[in-house]
Amino acid sequence: MLAIGDELLSGRTKDKNIGHLAEVMTVAGIDLKEVRIIGDEPHMIADTVNTLRRSYDLVFTSGGIGPTHDDITADAIAAAFGLPVIEHPEAIARLGSHYAAREMEFTPARRRMTRTPEGASLIDNPVSVAPGFRIDNVFVMAGVPSVFQAMLASLADTLPVGTPLKSRTIPCLFGEGDIGDPLSAIARAHPDVVIGSYPKFDGTGYFNEIVVRSRDEAALDDAASAVDAMLAAQASR
Amino acid sequence: MLAIGDELLSGRTKDKNIGHLAEVMTVAGIDLKEVRIIGDEPHMIADTVNTLRRSYDLVFTSGGIGPTHDDITADAIAAAFGLPVIEHPEAIARLGSHYAAREMEFTPARRRMTRTPEGASLIDNPVSVAPGFRIDNVFVMAGVPSVFQAMLASLADTLPVGTPLKSRTIPCLFGEGDIGDPLSAIARAHPDVVIGSYPKFDGTGYFNEIVVRSRDEAALDDAASAVDAMLAAQASR
Repeated sequence: MLAIGDELLSGRTKDKNIGHLAEVMTVAGIDLKEVRIIGDEPHMIADTVNTLRRSYDLVFTSGGIGPTHDDITADAIAAAFGLPVIEHPEAIARLGSHYAAREMEFTPARRRMTRTPEGASLIDNPVSVAPGFRIDNVFVMAGVPSVFQAMLASLADTLPVGTPLKSRTIPCLFGEGDIGDPLSAIARAHPDVVIGSYPKFDGTGYFNEIVVRSRDEAALDDAASAVDAMLAAQASR
Repeated sequence: MLAIGDELLSGRTKDKNIGHLAEVMTVAGIDLKEVRIIGDEPHMIADTVNTLRRSYDLVFTSGGIGPTHDDITADAIAAAFGLPVIEHPEAIARLGSHYAAREMEFTPARRRMTRTPEGASLIDNPVSVAPGFRIDNVFVMAGVPSVFQAMLASLADTLPVGTPLKSRTIPCLFGEGDIGDPLSAIARAHPDVVIGSYPKFDGTGYFNEIVVRSRDEAALDDAASAVDAMLAAQASR
């Protein structure tokens, strides 16, 4: 995923799309491998898109497809692919009828939202009409979270289906320092699962959750049982 | 910034450190230029740290410095620098006396938290003692937000001081499609400021904020006045 916007890097806006995409991908069985956040800089966007689309099967972007001068994502992605930017006919039709029905002017600014690299297909926007677009393996979506989420949902049927990673979360009353060594031994003994230990601090003390993940249900059960047994042994120490 | 952790990419944990660092950097006058989020993969961490530390003046990492087997950041960063990992004597002293005072065992797992690349200096952890570390221009901090924030605060005096970017936020009652064209003209006429337009959608309708940013106060005032005048003209249309 590539999240685009100066406002994310200044701290003015706290991203809400990365965590959402991560959850949707996990449910779909698609591994999210990397996220980058960069500003509204055309060359940086183009270079980063080129790096990511060549490294990964799918790339999702958020941000920079609105009607104002700082919305430069369509141009930057067209540049990345070496393609011209066009006003997409289907986007013109959708937005044109949307504004006509509301007796709103179809300003040049609003027409910016119809611009895509030549050959792109549209991504539906059930929230506010102005579409995202797909070009090759790059899915270009809005930064406003409600719109991003709606666009991602509209893609659900078109994405490849993977085997979802299953996980088991095991609450742990012991500190990581107490269970780190036996947990490490369990992780070594169960190479088909990924075991994570996630401490939290609530202001008064730490607590901890152990998460066991695998695409293989039997391996997951084995490893979770081993963690349960280790925690029971720890409790009786 | 580099945020490290499988749990961020699975959506299980929603990052809270990126937005915090972004705000702290903005106040300090340091431009945050890029953020990456990657999983607990040693080679990926080492490669990414090498890319970022050569591209930017400062690199801040979060995550992966606890006591469990999945905390591999110290090793990966040592590998990035081609340095051996040592048990840092000062970290041993701090954690040793911390556990001794609490009659807690200094387990091998807890000793993992003293490991740094050779030559690293420690970053204080006023919340839970186990330190972060700095090696060259890379600052390695915890992923637990309260600890990350405390570590970052303890660095404040050691970071370079830039000229903070000043900003003016102007509420806008008009849609981006209505003000996109005149706003674009203002942006072209004021090259020393950055003007952003940030639509929000609250479930019933859009509203918008225009943010003008500059390190030059006079240029900021000029551009903000131009935006105010444009909005007043729009209101009287």
